[in-house]
Amino acid sequence: MIGSADFKASWSALQDQTQQQLDRLLPLATEPPTRLHEAMRYACIDGGKRLRAILVYACGDLFSADPQVLHVPACAVECMHAYSLIHDDMPAMDDDQLRRGRPTVHVAYDEGIALLAGDALQAFAIEILSNHESLSQLKTQTQLKLVSTLSTASGSQGMAGGQGIDIESIGKRLSLPELKIMHEKKTGALICASALMGAICSENNEIEQINNLKKFAKHLGLLFQITDDILDETSTDQALGKTAGKDKAHDKPTYITLLGLEASRKQAMLHHQRAQTYLEKIGGNIEFLTQLNQFVLKRVC
Amino acid sequence: MIGSADFKASWSALQDQTQQQLDRLLPLATEPPTRLHEAMRYACIDGGKRLRAILVYACGDLFSADPQVLHVPACAVECMHAYSLIHDDMPAMDDDQLRRGRPTVHVAYDEGIALLAGDALQAFAIEILSNHESLSQLKTQTQLKLVSTLSTASGSQGMAGGQGIDIESIGKRLSLPELKIMHEKKTGALICASALMGAICSENNEIEQINNLKKFAKHLGLLFQITDDILDETSTDQALGKTAGKDKAHDKPTYITLLGLEASRKQAMLHHQRAQTYLEKIGGNIEFLTQLNQFVLKRVC
Repeated sequence: MIGSADFKASWSALQDQTQQQLDRLLPLATEPPTRLHEAMRYACIDGGKRLRAILVYACGDLFSADPQVLHVPACAVECMHAYSLIHDDMPAMDDDQLRRGRPTVHVAYDEGIALLAGDALQAFAIEILSNHESLSQLKTQTQLKLVSTLSTASGSQGMAGGQGIDIESIGKRLSLPELKIMHEKKTGALICASALMGAICSENNEIEQINNLKKFAKHLGLLFQITDDILDETSTDQALGKTAGKDKAHDKPTYITLLGLEASRKQAMLHHQRAQTYLEKIGGNIEFLTQLNQFVLKRVC
Repeated sequence: MIGSADFKASWSALQDQTQQQLDRLLPLATEPPTRLHEAMRYACIDGGKRLRAILVYACGDLFSADPQVLHVPACAVECMHAYSLIHDDMPAMDDDQLRRGRPTVHVAYDEGIALLAGDALQAFAIEILSNHESLSQLKTQTQLKLVSTLSTASGSQGMAGGQGIDIESIGKRLSLPELKIMHEKKTGALICASALMGAICSENNEIEQINNLKKFAKHLGLLFQITDDILDETSTDQALGKTAGKDKAHDKPTYITLLGLEASRKQAMLHHQRAQTYLEKIGGNIEFLTQLNQFVLKRVC
């Protein structure tokens, strides 16, 4: 069971575990094509909060999944997330130079390699979910559901769709419901998939519990996005490890531009509270996830 | 059974069928995010040889798969192929303006949408393979194998890997074995996956037959690539529907630069003959695939 006595130590241990598993699973940089594999590893290893992997581990733990089957889904969702960051940072999208405190992939390598490394990481995420031996103890139906959950969350109705709305809405003023829909897809879909994949691995899911988990993850995702918007406005490049203030620079609609700082903080507290309500409906040992929910809020409140 | 009396009519009917199925399966352009969905459809519908989809149908037919389960794998491989073309045409890679006789996606839309449409098409290919109801008659193990086959063929050991070697080798002189490895990954992996997915759908595969099918597809893939290299050198933009002479313009190693035109034609004939040998080892009603093999060769000989 994931410890909750010292939340930060547990969080840090799960980050290290994710790092080790990514290192173990990703193709070696010495394996050809070497530059492509090097760039894939550069984008995935050494950095990142690992929120999505940690959600796989923590929700898997809450639903009593075997810890050994959680490594591959945790790494798959991190690879999917890393690919989206590589492509999002490219000149065709946000044109960003800094990510996780280091040069972005197209700066460290070149745009061609960045494009391909993103493409290959998406394929790799699905490849390990569909054929890694550590998942052979699961029913094939369960494994297929992991694939379906992650690919749907990544596609045009999920993450890529949210990014599509994002670039269509540059310079426009969205309503709060429109902004929520964008974020539910852009960041929420993958956060929700992470929580679900953890639970799916338990092969023992009651529909009501899964619905509560989905709602918990939905509000956690919105909380995370609002805090991200606030930090983009109030923090520094150094503290974020990525370029601060870039939403404003790109004239992108955010919670801040729509509601201002104080009302955004209130929205963050509202979604934190709702996430907590659904977490308590699930019941069981929710201490770690309670603290995780608190931790995301505390980034800004 | 796929007809062989009039090869061109059968080929054309399979192209139309692929077109209709893509139209039916892809998200509507009226569904938000509309510009992204429009670009995904633009890249997939109205054009293309459909070689990969036709191989799914023809190899499925040869191995006696139910024709109804072949539509989704056929469309999935076409979506995967279409995504690779969108990204390959972008300024970060080949910087091409013309594809299938029309402006490339980043020209018709913009680079951000092109990047996302490619990303979303890769996710969509996996999504339909993992959850489309028309595949529910298959064993989940079979469905998972389709996912694994397509994602592995698309990733860093397959198509994306071949493209990685391609951009690493610009301006270099590769040996014939190195060139073959690049092409086996870059175009061969997806062609081989197409043939395999057809056979996998029959759920009745003897290992020896599958090995023969793999070797048939490997040589067909090389034949296809050599004829592509020859046409790039000898044909026009109009006849190709894409920019002719671009390999030379980008200083890319090809069969032509390595062997010259006549020796390349001989290589084409050699791989055509080897493909035919393995096809005959499979046996059964191989008439359509025999004519397909002939048809690819005839593009240049």
